Amino acid sequence: MLTAVALDGLPEIRSGDDLAELIATAAKAEDLRAGDVLVVAHKAVSKAEGRSRALASIEPSPRAKELAHQLDKDPRHVQAVLDESRVVLRAARGVLICVTHQGFVCANAGVDASNVAGSDTVVLLPRDPDASARRLRRQLRELVGIGPGILITDSFGRAWRHGQIDVAVGCAGLSPLEDWRGRPDAAGRELRATWIAVADQLAAAADLARRKDGRQPVVLVRGAERHVMEVDGPGAAALIRPEAEDLFR
Amino acid sequence: MLTAVALDGLPEIRSGDDLAELIATAAKAEDLRAGDVLVVAHKAVSKAEGRSRALASIEPSPRAKELAHQLDKDPRHVQAVLDESRVVLRAARGVLICVTHQGFVCANAGVDASNVAGSDTVVLLPRDPDASARRLRRQLRELVGIGPGILITDSFGRAWRHGQIDVAVGCAGLSPLEDWRGRPDAAGRELRATWIAVADQLAAAADLARRKDGRQPVVLVRGAERHVMEVDGPGAAALIRPEAEDLFR
Repeated sequence: MLTAVALDGLPEIRSGDDLAELIATAAKAEDLRAGDVLVVAHKAVSKAEGRSRALASIEPSPRAKELAHQLDKDPRHVQAVLDESRVVLRAARGVLICVTHQGFVCANAGVDASNVAGSDTVVLLPRDPDASARRLRRQLRELVGIGPGILITDSFGRAWRHGQIDVAVGCAGLSPLEDWRGRPDAAGRELRATWIAVADQLAAAADLARRKDGRQPVVLVRGAERHVMEVDGPGAAALIRPEAEDLFR
Repeated sequence: MLTAVALDGLPEIRSGDDLAELIATAAKAEDLRAGDVLVVAHKAVSKAEGRSRALASIEPSPRAKELAHQLDKDPRHVQAVLDESRVVLRAARGVLICVTHQGFVCANAGVDASNVAGSDTVVLLPRDPDASARRLRRQLRELVGIGPGILITDSFGRAWRHGQIDVAVGCAGLSPLEDWRGRPDAAGRELRATWIAVADQLAAAADLARRKDGRQPVVLVRGAERHVMEVDGPGAAALIRPEAEDLFR
């Protein structure tokens, strides 16, 4: 059985906050144990790490101004998106589809204005979300004696399908992919194309357990023990399909 | 709290089986209640509906033969894929990315050879998975007095990311998308881009609760009551992004 429960009692996260300490306190009611997974909305991590920018401090480039005009967006917001992007794949329908410096393909390079106190700030993805996950895991191990699997998530839109789902942008102590290729199915046939993005499925499951108003950034998932590892592992970077193997860029 | 538990005791499903009856029996231990969601792997539905084909009965066209040669696949399998496809978007790296007659964009038009007794058969997607979900819901309501939310799923690969996740191909009695656009977030700001593919997140969550050897096609999800509706609703068809709005075809 899989269970996902949102932690209550976390305050609005601010730059410089000790997120591990806050999570350890909020998780006390649940009594963390080995094999648990903590799924953390990236905004909480980004805010704690100071990964936000005041729009007033951003000077948009001519390219940002042109794209902003074309997409009906704030040129300073567009500049923030460009600063987080390695490549812009599409600019249409009010959205920039970007390859971020971390390698993720997503709308607006993960730059988001919602859930930030004051309307003049944007929140970025953590600079290295896998490193953030590893650090959070190490700190939690020191605080509570348990190194849970850590998953850092964002809501991404998809090609071909409406709506967003939460996916992994960082992880530690969690196997991001489960490889069943070559193993037999119930009929004894080799399962050929079964390579499961466990970390993304955990992200999606966790999102269903939280309220969307942003006050429940952390969800505890149980029942995924077999995906939790003692080592930190390859992180969510392993989920990125290399450009050379990608048919849709 | 969200919980997902796989139902045990379902037999290997065969053409003509009464799937609702089999699910009702398997679900007895869990005592179905209003607001429950039953997540059913499409293969169980497809098999019960006779949506499989013997490869020996398929005569590949010249185009199927050419694609099969190019992709190193069985030409009869490729013909089955072409028969399920409205359009082939890409043919490369051993895979055909297709738009199915139902409108889904996925690898090999959802045609799959795994988990079928005997190696000479392929399983197709249900012809109308939303209709299948509605029928299953109606039959379950007659059998157990409760019309649970029904979700029919398949494992899809994604652009840009490695691995597969389960997504909704059919649903009934379940709101496939939750629209938070225009509602305020915790800071009182309008949430602008928050349109959540609840049905896909439920599909992903359910898959984490089942063994992958194919003997647990049905998962019971609780804690998603607010997404369950008395009416059957728009189905998973509502998750399909229309071609005119799609930037990646």
